[in-house]
Amino acid sequence: MLGVHRNTVIAAYHELSAEGFLGTEPGRGTFIASSLPEVKPKRWLSGKASGPKLAVHPHFSFDAAPAELRFTPIPKGTLALYGGVPDTRSLPRLALARAYRRALRGVPSLLDYADPQGEPRLRSALAEMLRASRGLAVSADDVLVTRGSQMALALIGRALVRPGDVIAVESLGYKPAWRALAQRGARLAPVPIDAEGLAVDALEELCEREPVRAVYVTPHHQYPTTVTMTASRRMALLELARRKRFAIVEDDYDHEFHYEGRPVLPLASADHAGVVLYVGTMSKVLAPGLRIGYLIAPAAVRDAAIALRFDIDRQGDRLTEWAVAELMEDGELQRHVWRMRRVYQSRRDHCARELREHLGRWIRFGVPTGGMALWGQVSRALPVSSFLVQAARHGVLFQPGEQFTWGQRGTQHVRLGYGALTERELSTAVARLAEAARATAD
Amino acid sequence: MLGVHRNTVIAAYHELSAEGFLGTEPGRGTFIASSLPEVKPKRWLSGKASGPKLAVHPHFSFDAAPAELRFTPIPKGTLALYGGVPDTRSLPRLALARAYRRALRGVPSLLDYADPQGEPRLRSALAEMLRASRGLAVSADDVLVTRGSQMALALIGRALVRPGDVIAVESLGYKPAWRALAQRGARLAPVPIDAEGLAVDALEELCEREPVRAVYVTPHHQYPTTVTMTASRRMALLELARRKRFAIVEDDYDHEFHYEGRPVLPLASADHAGVVLYVGTMSKVLAPGLRIGYLIAPAAVRDAAIALRFDIDRQGDRLTEWAVAELMEDGELQRHVWRMRRVYQSRRDHCARELREHLGRWIRFGVPTGGMALWGQVSRALPVSSFLVQAARHGVLFQPGEQFTWGQRGTQHVRLGYGALTERELSTAVARLAEAARATAD
Repeated sequence: MLGVHRNTVIAAYHELSAEGFLGTEPGRGTFIASSLPEVKPKRWLSGKASGPKLAVHPHFSFDAAPAELRFTPIPKGTLALYGGVPDTRSLPRLALARAYRRALRGVPSLLDYADPQGEPRLRSALAEMLRASRGLAVSADDVLVTRGSQMALALIGRALVRPGDVIAVESLGYKPAWRALAQRGARLAPVPIDAEGLAVDALEELCEREPVRAVYVTPHHQYPTTVTMTASRRMALLELARRKRFAIVEDDYDHEFHYEGRPVLPLASADHAGVVLYVGTMSKVLAPGLRIGYLIAPAAVRDAAIALRFDIDRQGDRLTEWAVAELMEDGELQRHVWRMRRVYQSRRDHCARELREHLGRWIRFGVPTGGMALWGQVSRALPVSSFLVQAARHGVLFQPGEQFTWGQRGTQHVRLGYGALTERELSTAVARLAEAARATAD
Repeated sequence: MLGVHRNTVIAAYHELSAEGFLGTEPGRGTFIASSLPEVKPKRWLSGKASGPKLAVHPHFSFDAAPAELRFTPIPKGTLALYGGVPDTRSLPRLALARAYRRALRGVPSLLDYADPQGEPRLRSALAEMLRASRGLAVSADDVLVTRGSQMALALIGRALVRPGDVIAVESLGYKPAWRALAQRGARLAPVPIDAEGLAVDALEELCEREPVRAVYVTPHHQYPTTVTMTASRRMALLELARRKRFAIVEDDYDHEFHYEGRPVLPLASADHAGVVLYVGTMSKVLAPGLRIGYLIAPAAVRDAAIALRFDIDRQGDRLTEWAVAELMEDGELQRHVWRMRRVYQSRRDHCARELREHLGRWIRFGVPTGGMALWGQVSRALPVSSFLVQAARHGVLFQPGEQFTWGQRGTQHVRLGYGALTERELSTAVARLAEAARATAD
């Protein structure tokens, strides 16, 4: 009927049978298979059905710097006195789940491509919060929503910084931020910090010698020493930045959790010259897993950052941005912050009491005015590296001071976080720490 | 009682009243205020209550390249024939909402800090999918989950590429990918493409002249010409990469939507030498707003990419990764893909028919074997730049060919996407396009 050669028809039948589209029943004939096969992809290279296993080293040249592990899970049963980790157990989880559901079911367009600057609703809510409580005269257009403060810093590093630039940093600090800012080949230069915060006169001397492009500071609760930068240092820093024309990258990472006295307004609230790039985050007030941060910067810098953001991941997580905006608008977030402030303050006091009682002879520390961790100095009778190992054996983890330094070995400082543990867990953790201390000293 | 001077007490009362902690009732006395005030932040710089408005230009030097707009919203009522935009209206939204709810309520730890490589559950599901349908012998450990393919390309650009490197690209392509790969200061070099895909002999000539570090290709459905790279070109490319030791960045951006014949296995499935860096995405099969992509690469490259990812945004969106894994495990995603493949194929055919009927005299095009857009050439009687303007006036948008070129002005190519519109909307869009064509020709 089709006018093709019989052999062609036979070949076609064979191929269709081989592919499973036809089945033969001996004595009865050839029929369409009762269940058609999944269309299998076409192999264009004969050989094994599945490809070769992934190589460890690529065939092209690749100098992989041995990458430090960025994340190690906490062993089950171990208590981690890690700073900067909020207690997500008390999150308004149901409210969040409802917000996600309303977003998914009521706002279909949230799953489409959109503005890399972030959901307008969240930018409005953030702008309102920043106006009301941080003295920043901003509107929704001024806010760039980022995936955590880390992304804001990564964008600044790319928008602002050039190879050969010098970035001044507090001599103790947050290395992932340093890496993000220096990614284009800038040099980091440490500036001393003391009980008043950054030593601005030392920074001024640095500016005489080096092309300082920016200074990275954590003025509300210095990371990791917890010191709040005094008013006179703040004014001096703004004045120096104005005179020398460098940028101030202000990382206000846990603004809300301030316990003694009133919270201090950010440098950005007094930035008449236009030198501050203000970075904030919701990781501590909500949850680190939600990855909501923000950048407030002069419009030219912000626009450059938005374009660069597109080239990284195109846009934020719109469902999350929408859900968080809802929690902000209906007051749920604010209530959560009030609750957690009281909780963290109690945990701070409890942790301090326990440490004084059980480890007072080994660890000296100040009680921080804010934040979720304290900064202590360990007696030389207890070398921190051995102490860390013993502590892990006893089921407790903490952050050794060298995580925050310029690779100085032998620093006896430690960071002990109390935010994520209940008072009972804190007692257990401190007890284990004390056992570990005794084991180390022996 | 306290042993302080009376004046001190009076001053204290005044301050507490001023701050709203105390209230005075004339004739009755001073009492604790019935509603305690919000703790107001401390102003350390006298002056206005709220800070200065954000500057447009920063005080420090900043050369902002005029940033092209990365996103323009579609005006209400306008139909956009944009390629690469899936129809998110038919997403299994309820299943997704349920998955998010289960994640939020059942897996509290999803909101904590975690592995930058991505949720193990999703990495397993992706590995299984890649083994089953793409011939890749991978396990969960081999997968790096990224926020869309854009992030995978951004990580490759940072892990692999150095200033002075040359990256060969198809002479028509996806500019955000080019920018991501060249971000460290590499040069892009175009290689011609034809009906078989990349001209590998021309690439070989380029390698004689230049230090080619990598080639970026879209071999399944060449972006934007829709051509599928033939078997012989694929084998030649792998062989050349092996011989010359450059990397092949394979962007398999809409693998699932293949209509004619069987889908072709990726280059990565035959990568015996270890030269392919394989990038995939779920943006087309699920939704762009969910930002799920993945990178498969030799372990040394992958580990470097994971460390770099941490410095960008620390980790992915774990709730989303978890929810998507659930949709993959219970078959919801696969059913959605099967449905949408039939839908997109019908839309392709409908769009092709309408175009032939109403614009056949102005636009020549091939019917693509896969994907969500076709590639057409417009008659010179209809200059594309004017046509674009008229089309917008008539309520229809499309992508002009110069979006994909090396800044060549005057190209008469256009990309017309049919994925996101129903057949009825496609008819309307084509009708508007025809009116716009008539208006342009006059």
